[in-house]
Amino acid sequence: MSKGTVVLAYSGGLDTSCILVWLKEQGYDVIAYLANIGQDEDFDAARKKAESLGAKKVFVEDLRAEFVEEFIWPSVQANAIYEDRYLLGTSIARPCIARRQVLIARQEGAQYVAHGATGKGNDQIRFELTCYALYPSILAPWRIPEFYNRFKGRKDLMDYAQNHPPSDIFCMTKNPEDSPSAPDVLEIEFSKGVPVKVTHLKEGTSKTTPLQIFTYLNEIGGRHGVGRIDIVENRFIGMKCRGIYETPGGTILYHAHLDMEIFTMDREVRRIKQGLGINFSELVYNGFWYSPECEFVRHCIAKSQENVEGKVQVSVLKGHVYILGRESPKSPYNEELVSMDVQGDYNPCDASGFIKINAVRLKEYNRLQNYSFRS
Amino acid sequence: MSKGTVVLAYSGGLDTSCILVWLKEQGYDVIAYLANIGQDEDFDAARKKAESLGAKKVFVEDLRAEFVEEFIWPSVQANAIYEDRYLLGTSIARPCIARRQVLIARQEGAQYVAHGATGKGNDQIRFELTCYALYPSILAPWRIPEFYNRFKGRKDLMDYAQNHPPSDIFCMTKNPEDSPSAPDVLEIEFSKGVPVKVTHLKEGTSKTTPLQIFTYLNEIGGRHGVGRIDIVENRFIGMKCRGIYETPGGTILYHAHLDMEIFTMDREVRRIKQGLGINFSELVYNGFWYSPECEFVRHCIAKSQENVEGKVQVSVLKGHVYILGRESPKSPYNEELVSMDVQGDYNPCDASGFIKINAVRLKEYNRLQNYSFRS
Amino acid sequence: MSKGTVVLAYSGGLDTSCILVWLKEQGYDVIAYLANIGQDEDFDAARKKAESLGAKKVFVEDLRAEFVEEFIWPSVQANAIYEDRYLLGTSIARPCIARRQVLIARQEGAQYVAHGATGKGNDQIRFELTCYALYPSILAPWRIPEFYNRFKGRKDLMDYAQNHPPSDIFCMTKNPEDSPSAPDVLEIEFSKGVPVKVTHLKEGTSKTTPLQIFTYLNEIGGRHGVGRIDIVENRFIGMKCRGIYETPGGTILYHAHLDMEIFTMDREVRRIKQGLGINFSELVYNGFWYSPECEFVRHCIAKSQENVEGKVQVSVLKGHVYILGRESPKSPYNEELVSMDVQGDYNPCDASGFIKINAVRLKEYNRLQNYSFRS
Amino acid sequence: MSKGTVVLAYSGGLDTSCILVWLKEQGYDVIAYLANIGQDEDFDAARKKAESLGAKKVFVEDLRAEFVEEFIWPSVQANAIYEDRYLLGTSIARPCIARRQVLIARQEGAQYVAHGATGKGNDQIRFELTCYALYPSILAPWRIPEFYNRFKGRKDLMDYAQNHPPSDIFCMTKNPEDSPSAPDVLEIEFSKGVPVKVTHLKEGTSKTTPLQIFTYLNEIGGRHGVGRIDIVENRFIGMKCRGIYETPGGTILYHAHLDMEIFTMDREVRRIKQGLGINFSELVYNGFWYSPECEFVRHCIAKSQENVEGKVQVSVLKGHVYILGRESPKSPYNEELVSMDVQGDYNPCDASGFIKINAVRLKEYNRLQNYSFRS
Repeated sequence: MSKGTVVLAYSGGLDTSCILVWLKEQGYDVIAYLANIGQDEDFDAARKKAESLGAKKVFVEDLRAEFVEEFIWPSVQANAIYEDRYLLGTSIARPCIARRQVLIARQEGAQYVAHGATGKGNDQIRFELTCYALYPSILAPWRIPEFYNRFKGRKDLMDYAQNHPPSDIFCMTKNPEDSPSAPDVLEIEFSKGVPVKVTHLKEGTSKTTPLQIFTYLNEIGGRHGVGRIDIVENRFIGMKCRGIYETPGGTILYHAHLDMEIFTMDREVRRIKQGLGINFSELVYNGFWYSPECEFVRHCIAKSQENVEGKVQVSVLKGHVYILGRESPKSPYNEELVSMDVQGDYNPCDASGFIKINAVRLKEYNRLQNYSFRS
Repeated sequence: MSKGTVVLAYSGGLDTSCILVWLKEQGYDVIAYLANIGQDEDFDAARKKAESLGAKKVFVEDLRAEFVEEFIWPSVQANAIYEDRYLLGTSIARPCIARRQVLIARQEGAQYVAHGATGKGNDQIRFELTCYALYPSILAPWRIPEFYNRFKGRKDLMDYAQNHPPSDIFCMTKNPEDSPSAPDVLEIEFSKGVPVKVTHLKEGTSKTTPLQIFTYLNEIGGRHGVGRIDIVENRFIGMKCRGIYETPGGTILYHAHLDMEIFTMDREVRRIKQGLGINFSELVYNGFWYSPECEFVRHCIAKSQENVEGKVQVSVLKGHVYILGRESPKSPYNEELVSMDVQGDYNPCDASGFIKINAVRLKEYNRLQNYSFRS
Repeated sequence: MSKGTVVLAYSGGLDTSCILVWLKEQGYDVIAYLANIGQDEDFDAARKKAESLGAKKVFVEDLRAEFVEEFIWPSVQANAIYEDRYLLGTSIARPCIARRQVLIARQEGAQYVAHGATGKGNDQIRFELTCYALYPSILAPWRIPEFYNRFKGRKDLMDYAQNHPPSDIFCMTKNPEDSPSAPDVLEIEFSKGVPVKVTHLKEGTSKTTPLQIFTYLNEIGGRHGVGRIDIVENRFIGMKCRGIYETPGGTILYHAHLDMEIFTMDREVRRIKQGLGINFSELVYNGFWYSPECEFVRHCIAKSQENVEGKVQVSVLKGHVYILGRESPKSPYNEELVSMDVQGDYNPCDASGFIKINAVRLKEYNRLQNYSFRS
Repeated sequence: MSKGTVVLAYSGGLDTSCILVWLKEQGYDVIAYLANIGQDEDFDAARKKAESLGAKKVFVEDLRAEFVEEFIWPSVQANAIYEDRYLLGTSIARPCIARRQVLIARQEGAQYVAHGATGKGNDQIRFELTCYALYPSILAPWRIPEFYNRFKGRKDLMDYAQNHPPSDIFCMTKNPEDSPSAPDVLEIEFSKGVPVKVTHLKEGTSKTTPLQIFTYLNEIGGRHGVGRIDIVENRFIGMKCRGIYETPGGTILYHAHLDMEIFTMDREVRRIKQGLGINFSELVYNGFWYSPECEFVRHCIAKSQENVEGKVQVSVLKGHVYILGRESPKSPYNEELVSMDVQGDYNPCDASGFIKINAVRLKEYNRLQNYSFRS
């Protein structure tokens, strides 16, 4: 008799295949679920493999559009970056994948959901917190002693699960050294802080749907070796670990959005929003996409983006993204106000008062401390 | 009869030359003061020019070593960056220059210090807040109506003071497109968060004094077109303005230090220190280097750097800085702990408890909100 | 010939009466404007005084309801408190008063608005920043040299403007020592973070409009000597100054709202909201009620209050506010979950995993530092 | 044969007595350890009880002085307060108690330490994180299934462990309604942010050692019913729970220190320190006293206290603490600067410039948004 039905997040690879077989051996009915979020994968072959291993049903779900619109776009608005470097690619994929998995489990009446993430990583947390937030029960074979003890000796499985050699790890980006020596110049148009159009200025071609825009930026960024990093990061679990990532399209968007945001947003609004963006990044990295605080932060950030509108011109070359210029109908940038030629409403004498008042505190401090200084 | 003695921060250029002449016309004795903080300048020619314009005395001061050690190094420790992009080059030069100027004024018994910074910019504030914090009186000709009204019609002076055309603006960095196609690979060694040695790995040459290290990194970064940005920034005065900067050495150090910091510092210490770094950057940008709060923040940041020690390998190519690897005697990075092969002290089952407790709050929220989600 | 029309924020007191007369002497037409925000004042007498001093028109405006609903309520939601002590009473009155003044100026075609706030205080800033944000030109006599030089010798005017002796300063609150020795017990009902009903539990009487609620809480709080403080505070202008305040109703609301907020709001949402509340308090204290950042912060805080709903019972006695209990249909407080008797969904073993994972970082730190400790 | 030696944090109560017996039954040698941190307890009776239950050794340790100096004083410097209300009494006792326990374990060669904190609370975490940070192995009976399953039916043990009825819960403070109707007026002298002397102004008596000072403030505060709160708080474990606390001495110190801090500390230093104090409070509440980040924060906060020096006069009456006045040799409070009579160095016209420059941003925003407002 069946112990119940499990929806397994299946990748087609060796590790989740082992889990599929093991779950069946333990007496579960297994529904395999493959999420297409844009990775390079033969989904038909994976489907057949799952069926041949005994999956009762196989779901291959195209989540690419919702991944871009509902997960990547809010991250672009947030200028999301973990520990000043990591653009959170995988981190935002997990809640998107798990959300659909929970939906399938509900619809199919499954008692369990399972994943193949290992017991020392972040993905187990991102996956499971999403499930707990959206749905009750979970089964995570990698942390079940019977499971990981059985596979302990299987060097091939463990090897697979380990960090792959760096040479193989990049599948989207060219080595910058081997990339073209002429730049591609793009114009990215934003509205409410998300890209609504990308134009290749020389070729005159444009992309306008979210999925097309993101795919195209990945392609251009990849061609020029943009967005590769080799870092040590702090996992939620309390360990430092090495991570090698490539985020070509995300890197272009990060720079372009940052430029448009500072161009159009009030300085003090942005200072507050910058703090919220740091909150957002940590929450998402740690797996709290579906949490009251992340929902709240996303709402606030979206509010801040209402006037982030305009066009940024960027040049992409040899791993680097250069901002060439920007324009916006909503920027408080005021060439006349800044100009030295035009005095206008601005009276330079006011600056004296401004400085003197700012110095009141400093003078008092000087009086008390009798500032000494080396020369 | 003299109205008193003014120490003028003199650049050798047209604008401060005009000020020098005007101050003399107004009846002041003028001491010209030229600070060498590493800029490309013919100091002898400038000295002669000042003398010929009637300066009573001329001081040419080599501040390069103290600029690097007392101003740039703390900024490296802070990972100082304003509005996520600007590495604060000019901002940290002002307090260094003004400090010496105040010292000369004291030593020479001068009643005034003056500068040539314009009335809409940040530099006037940085300059004057330093002086108010360290010394009493100030004279700032650009904001004196008699001065700027007189020169209003002098198109040449105004032109000079305006933003120079971008083509001329870069004097330290090559255009990345024209830079070498082979990288330079450096090893930068840190102790207490500041660089103590830079080695060119292929050539085997090293630099070990702060000034040599910084000069060398400027040279290498400049050769590869590193650190050019074209941004719009928010001035303290409340305006948005365009800025074009080049910070070759600073950009290399920013990336190398960030890498070493995350490698060696506890995650939670770094989260707090990250906030202090943002405080530091805003304070310095706004001219508050000499303030109780900036002093306090510098102290705290320096404390956080005690274990930021080790070597980072970086590759510099075509405007980009790549981190290749790092090592440290003081990193909590523990390959064994992270490894999938070695279980050690870490029990993967603990992660279940960790996740479940983190989910307590989320489940309660779910219970209350009855989370609905689109599919 | 008239130099133009000024709308003067007129208090009926000596200082603004002087200003009224002086403005007329200088050749301005003066419209006197008295705002009723709930202060104890004979508005008819003030109107007559203004007319007798030569005001062209006199506006007495009852702003009490809009002051409570549009200014006090958002401050309650924010738990607004400056430097951990000051409940911002005057600070939030200024933008309310200035907004109507600007409106009158527009409607009457006046070129100027003026106020009687002194040149070293905060109120001048709060007043003027509101005007600049909403309307162009301003005239502030206290900072005009002709004005303050003329009145320098007038000891009586200066005396009046100075801090009044503490014995006179409290007009709303009784001395706690002289207050009743039996408490009043109230139940305050909140919806979306603002009070919607106050009931005196013993008397069974209720108040339900914002103005009635606030007036009643002032009365009850005043009777029991609640909300008196004697502090030194940091003005925006950079000085420390002494302030003596009484905020009886505001103090009761501060405690009751805080209790309901923590009861109903997710812990992590509240941590973020706490930071926004600090931002809000500083902005309002410094005069930035009408600014893009304060608008943004108010929006975010209001969003956080959606579930702040329920009833708090408070006892008011001898200057202190005691929270007796609370109930809410929307609290994640779950007696069963917390109880030691009921295990329910919660497995105490999970806490072991939670603690061990939280300790991973600490153990590594111990390994590196070799923690020594005194005994 | 013994399974090893356990040092048990023993309270003398029913719950830890049960644990003692149970540990012995399981085959452990048990060392009972009672910490005296100032609680009202018959330590001799508890020692005898432990011996009679079979403890191999009993340690009764007087930690009162080190608790005050090393744990309470830093919390006073931090103005530590969790969720704006809870003064952290128990939270800071745990690391103090656990530190000595670890020391005894080392000295006695014990393999285990154990405590009686329950599996849903905060104390288990505070206790265990301290041990993990300072020492390796731990045994926590309350979370061992054999233990809590066995005692599940024992209603008396569970009852004891539950929240005690509120009527009994206050042992240090009088009901404010029953407290004296005449105040006690104290002068508290601070140096480097910690109290160094307390004087009863009427009686003329003083206390000068940390333990005496704190004990005396507890006595005075207790007599007047100061520091009782009834709150719902957010536990680290993710639950909301009710807590009833009394902190008489801590409440007096909180208010007195806050007053002296704002009086003597630069405004902007304090803004940064305020954030660090919030960090500190959350860390300590969550059990991270011994962590790199809490160590770092304590260091920074201590640095901020260098000039927090002077005397505060406070009146304590009917549950409330009133600040009467303060004096300090190190305050930047400058009566002359603030005074309306003395113009001194301060030019009121500078305020115009200050305000106008602060308004530049607001005017630009107005221009873009065309601010509309209701009347």
